[in-house]
Amino acid sequence: MSKKFVEKITSMDEDFAQWYTDVVTKAELVDYSSVRGSMIIRPYGYALWENIKNELDQKIKKTGHENVYMPLFIPESLLQKEKDHIEGFAPEVAWVTHGGDEKLQERLVVRPTSEVLFGEHYKNIIHSYRDLPKLYNQWANVVRWEKTTRPFLRTLEFLWQEGHTCHETDEDAQDETVKMLNVYAEICENYLAIPVIKGQKTEKEKFAGAKHTYTIESLMHDGKALQSATSHHLGDGFAKAFGIQFLDREGKQQYVQQTSWGFTTRIIGAMIMVHGDDRGLVVPPKIAPTQVMIVPIAQHKEGVLDFTYALKERLSQSLRVGIDASDKKPGWKFNEYEMKGIPLRLEAGPRDIEQQQVVLVRRDTGEKLVTPIEGLEVKIHEVLADIQQNLLEKARTHRETKTSTATTFEDFKVQIVEKAGFIKAMWCGNQACEDKIKEETSATSRCMPFEQEQVAQTCVCCGKEAEHLVYWAKAY
Amino acid sequence: MSKKFVEKITSMDEDFAQWYTDVVTKAELVDYSSVRGSMIIRPYGYALWENIKNELDQKIKKTGHENVYMPLFIPESLLQKEKDHIEGFAPEVAWVTHGGDEKLQERLVVRPTSEVLFGEHYKNIIHSYRDLPKLYNQWANVVRWEKTTRPFLRTLEFLWQEGHTCHETDEDAQDETVKMLNVYAEICENYLAIPVIKGQKTEKEKFAGAKHTYTIESLMHDGKALQSATSHHLGDGFAKAFGIQFLDREGKQQYVQQTSWGFTTRIIGAMIMVHGDDRGLVVPPKIAPTQVMIVPIAQHKEGVLDFTYALKERLSQSLRVGIDASDKKPGWKFNEYEMKGIPLRLEAGPRDIEQQQVVLVRRDTGEKLVTPIEGLEVKIHEVLADIQQNLLEKARTHRETKTSTATTFEDFKVQIVEKAGFIKAMWCGNQACEDKIKEETSATSRCMPFEQEQVAQTCVCCGKEAEHLVYWAKAY
Repeated sequence: MSKKFVEKITSMDEDFAQWYTDVVTKAELVDYSSVRGSMIIRPYGYALWENIKNELDQKIKKTGHENVYMPLFIPESLLQKEKDHIEGFAPEVAWVTHGGDEKLQERLVVRPTSEVLFGEHYKNIIHSYRDLPKLYNQWANVVRWEKTTRPFLRTLEFLWQEGHTCHETDEDAQDETVKMLNVYAEICENYLAIPVIKGQKTEKEKFAGAKHTYTIESLMHDGKALQSATSHHLGDGFAKAFGIQFLDREGKQQYVQQTSWGFTTRIIGAMIMVHGDDRGLVVPPKIAPTQVMIVPIAQHKEGVLDFTYALKERLSQSLRVGIDASDKKPGWKFNEYEMKGIPLRLEAGPRDIEQQQVVLVRRDTGEKLVTPIEGLEVKIHEVLADIQQNLLEKARTHRETKTSTATTFEDFKVQIVEKAGFIKAMWCGNQACEDKIKEETSATSRCMPFEQEQVAQTCVCCGKEAEHLVYWAKAY
Repeated sequence: MSKKFVEKITSMDEDFAQWYTDVVTKAELVDYSSVRGSMIIRPYGYALWENIKNELDQKIKKTGHENVYMPLFIPESLLQKEKDHIEGFAPEVAWVTHGGDEKLQERLVVRPTSEVLFGEHYKNIIHSYRDLPKLYNQWANVVRWEKTTRPFLRTLEFLWQEGHTCHETDEDAQDETVKMLNVYAEICENYLAIPVIKGQKTEKEKFAGAKHTYTIESLMHDGKALQSATSHHLGDGFAKAFGIQFLDREGKQQYVQQTSWGFTTRIIGAMIMVHGDDRGLVVPPKIAPTQVMIVPIAQHKEGVLDFTYALKERLSQSLRVGIDASDKKPGWKFNEYEMKGIPLRLEAGPRDIEQQQVVLVRRDTGEKLVTPIEGLEVKIHEVLADIQQNLLEKARTHRETKTSTATTFEDFKVQIVEKAGFIKAMWCGNQACEDKIKEETSATSRCMPFEQEQVAQTCVCCGKEAEHLVYWAKAY
């Protein structure tokens, strides 16, 4: 029997960073290795990713996209074709310089993202407007040479999907960019119970090589924001760099308009920091690898194991169900599955069997529900739906509590310390103000939300005429 | 309209290598890029891989394995821990030496396989016999610095799954090794219609660091063999190198017994070379992304498109169905979907509609079947099952025709040229004979089959007492 479930984890309020590390390791999501900045994703962590991936992959296919696979390596000269792109990525890539015993004539980059590979391929396969749109996606690993890393949130290597599309017109590309941002928002809100703010990144914060970058931003328990996914309108920048042209409907050569968009293992970090508590992980039912964990009570007594195994068999028809009939004490099991954030615990002992009932225990509220065996599935589905809804609402309420409005820089500085969450404030559109705000408060512009309001007439920093409402926050 | 379907592909008998290249590119499975030795897997090629992956992943999970994800990079010192392993892999790895602008203190290898990463992790998480068996698998990309490459068959980077397991006893590990080889054989025979020979690799041909390597070998149309998957009993070699010990049932410290096993995108190359013909790819129905392609005839005539789209809707309930209502001529469409190896074409025009029938055309035999609309699904499922069976039997017959027995080295040398396939011949067990056979005939030992026969008393090469029957062949 492992000792770890006796130890308590660090409390969130005491040390949030340590709480996070405790949760990811003790819930057995990840392990560290001798590979700096990389993580081992353990079975429970990977099962979460598989569920997220399956959901998202279905949506990507339903919106007409096809999966492909591009090479891991990018020749240096190919990466250099788009100027802004190489400038943005060069400082944070891993370089392959030798193959076997031989020094390579040209260095290879381990892909940090694959715009240039798609660019080269699209040039080969697109010739006419009849070839458009091209709607491709790939599931892959990418590498960014980060100095400071934390499991899921910022790792040297991470897993993601990257969509890359080509269109006839700027408008088509714009529609695609927003459509896929909405798909991401839907996954976050409906499956992961993470409420998001949709908006546009400022010029300073946009993707290297993009015309516009759109983002969904979520708020963690500690009041820091987390960029949860991005979708880029690339315009014709890459198309010009790679010569991706097509004969349009009027018989003229045109450059394609492109998009790219990505969703990563980082979202698991968001899920942990939005829903977790001092007893560990809390996993939303829709995404949970195990939705119901059965713990037999007094399992040595006659009939208990038969009864609970039969129940597992029955419930598995429509639910993801586990059973722990090991010789650990029930209390240890309770702690373990609370740490793992399993949405619902089902307890059944001799007295329950006699009375043809079970006890359901909600992970989110701790509520105990004595429930008759008859119609149990219906009740469980109801409770799981309620947990899912409750997690989303709790997260919304938390975000609202942690969102404030500032109209002066003084207010801004006070609120970023005292409220520690999103600050809504007007901005003149000038990068100097963005830089100053970051320098003096550590807060960055998260996005210019699609739902604009005029909370003041003037920029919160310089006092000149305001152009945009911006969500500001300290961020992961 | 693309020109490529007018051009004929090279005939198999004329130039098999060129035929292969023509098929993989014209069936739009892959594209080349500026990344040497790597391939772009296009939507049709990737859809094949997704289907294979889904089938295999289900079987891997049903046999009790859990998916995990290990880092892409391996520090040089970690790779060096198991002596035979590093010797085997060092000449063919890609080295990362710089991160951003910095030279790394220790070089990193891009994983060629992940035994050492699993070894390090298993040492962390295995302590007692209660922790065993550990049955892990990962889906990943790996890199081997190959000089000569061909799409699917031998690429610098390829996709695969790699299983890595730990067991209490040598016997348990042996059972696992053979169980997973059987899973691979089942996928090959039942889904890909590729018959395989199961057997053990010789010492010379086994995996670097393994105790025993088992393999499934298949025979291509041109008579060359292809190693289709391998499963390794690792013994306690890695366990000793990494210190993976557990307290056994008697309270003693023991080293775990390990296995590893892998199945790669290479199998798509095998599928192409086993079933393809001079009109292109032939895809077995069970694995086909599109099982039935509907081609409307005289589609401008009233009712044809309504009829065929309704048919697509109806058949899609139980089949993977496509429809091509583009303005290409039917003949062009026929060529395209024959090139892509779609198992069944469904034609329907005004006269068919009048008579409430369609024409089914089999890709494997070219046979045309006029079939009533009523009960069409049942008929299609029957025909697809028959195609699947026919492909397997054709491949079996081809392999039998190309398999001969040699009892003298003279016979061997004649047969390897004249028959160009598998040669069954006895071997003394001495590597010198294996080396000599390879040197003089280019044939290598493919495996010592599980089904041993005594085709002679003496080694085909040296004439000394024979120990094993071996399948020999030139190989990919």
